[in-house]
Amino acid sequence: MTRVALVCPGKPIRRERADAVLALAAAEFPHVELAFHPQCFVEHGHFAGDDAMRLAAFVEAANDPDVDAVWFAMGGYGACRIAPEAMAALGEATRAKTYLGYSDTGILLGGLYRHGIGRPAHGPLAGDIRREGGEDAIRRVLRFFSGEPAPEPLDAAPTVAFNLMTLAMLAGTELMPDLTGHVVMVEEVAEHLYAVDRLFFHVTQALKGAAGLRLGRVSDVPENDRPFGMDEVAIAQYWCAKSAIPYLGRADIGHDAANIIVPFGARN
Amino acid sequence: MTRVALVCPGKPIRRERADAVLALAAAEFPHVELAFHPQCFVEHGHFAGDDAMRLAAFVEAANDPDVDAVWFAMGGYGACRIAPEAMAALGEATRAKTYLGYSDTGILLGGLYRHGIGRPAHGPLAGDIRREGGEDAIRRVLRFFSGEPAPEPLDAAPTVAFNLMTLAMLAGTELMPDLTGHVVMVEEVAEHLYAVDRLFFHVTQALKGAAGLRLGRVSDVPENDRPFGMDEVAIAQYWCAKSAIPYLGRADIGHDAANIIVPFGARN
Repeated sequence: MTRVALVCPGKPIRRERADAVLALAAAEFPHVELAFHPQCFVEHGHFAGDDAMRLAAFVEAANDPDVDAVWFAMGGYGACRIAPEAMAALGEATRAKTYLGYSDTGILLGGLYRHGIGRPAHGPLAGDIRREGGEDAIRRVLRFFSGEPAPEPLDAAPTVAFNLMTLAMLAGTELMPDLTGHVVMVEEVAEHLYAVDRLFFHVTQALKGAAGLRLGRVSDVPENDRPFGMDEVAIAQYWCAKSAIPYLGRADIGHDAANIIVPFGARN
Repeated sequence: MTRVALVCPGKPIRRERADAVLALAAAEFPHVELAFHPQCFVEHGHFAGDDAMRLAAFVEAANDPDVDAVWFAMGGYGACRIAPEAMAALGEATRAKTYLGYSDTGILLGGLYRHGIGRPAHGPLAGDIRREGGEDAIRRVLRFFSGEPAPEPLDAAPTVAFNLMTLAMLAGTELMPDLTGHVVMVEEVAEHLYAVDRLFFHVTQALKGAAGLRLGRVSDVPENDRPFGMDEVAIAQYWCAKSAIPYLGRADIGHDAANIIVPFGARN
């Protein structure tokens, strides 16, 4: 039996979406036991409970020796408000676990990776069940929790994957891992191309010494009052060239149901 | 005679707005000579000319020994694409000048301040003439260029002022000045409150050791699918408290015609 604790470091998940994930797991993955922490359903302004509640839920799940994996149920925004305190509260039992999510929860994945705690992995959130093809995204995660390996890495170097804005906010903080020698995959959603360009300026300055950059999907770009004049690949290539970071091509990550699982670090 | 060169490091300015600024200056400030660089009116995708053209215009204006001040005519986005190269190309004549603007052009002001070049100052752009009350904003700048002092500083410590997103993108880069012991004023426009909160997480981590933070106006906040649960003052106070940065109250800056002039650094 694999025991998975679900928490929401940012926004809450809707009850019916959690129920759909539970039903799918019960029907197809009887050896995976999912437990949504009650905190996942609390609403407090923007957040799934206030900072103290979200912090306590994450720390409780991470420190529980009977839990094999912590799965972030939703992203949204809010992980940075609890991540520094969370890192300080993690004991021995947090080290043998997998931590899985993406988007805003990358703040916690980054902090865990910096501190060498457990096995952080980029991958779908439970809330992704709402997307077209979302059930397949959930199955992908449940197969991974069942022991099926993530897709073969594209590169020999240790790899991480982040939402671009999340990585930009992480850069330079006490949670930022050392990504020297790493392949860094980034994806973005719902940002103007000028904002994507601006984020690349910031992020590539923080990634000097990286082994390379791969570009995930940049989706739901809002229409601006003028065309930006280059697409997301040209933007990534431009900033990689300026910072002497090899541009390695595309990555199969994004705010969509096809988003693959990317375990952080080396694979062997 | 005070000679002022206008350039656009990001977006172009519309010709009729430039003409309105020229007309106001000619009528009321005959001792201030304004010269819009032709680059200000070029359109290249998002930008007022490609990177090489925008870089050349700024460097030409900054290096011209007959120019007393470089005034950024528009912000938008794009200064970070030319700022590192610009810093490397500035000679002796750039040191005796005033550089004035805000918003995206804060990237250049920050880089100049880091390198101790000239007198960077936060203040209205020529393009602000389009705003309600915009003529007064232009008069404020032209009086400053004429030698009238900026408003008395609120604090004894050296002060800087930035757009919050611009400062967030500057943080950790080769253009970021050392703001230890400084009062840092920040303002924002057209960002969700959750995004403002996220930017404060990032920026306050980079401002440890600052003398304090003052909050300018946070305007045109888009409506979100849920209320954030606290206002911009509560957000600033929260992050200042977490980072042990004194929150000093409000600052009279923002994306509006009332935006005051804030010379960077100490005032004596």
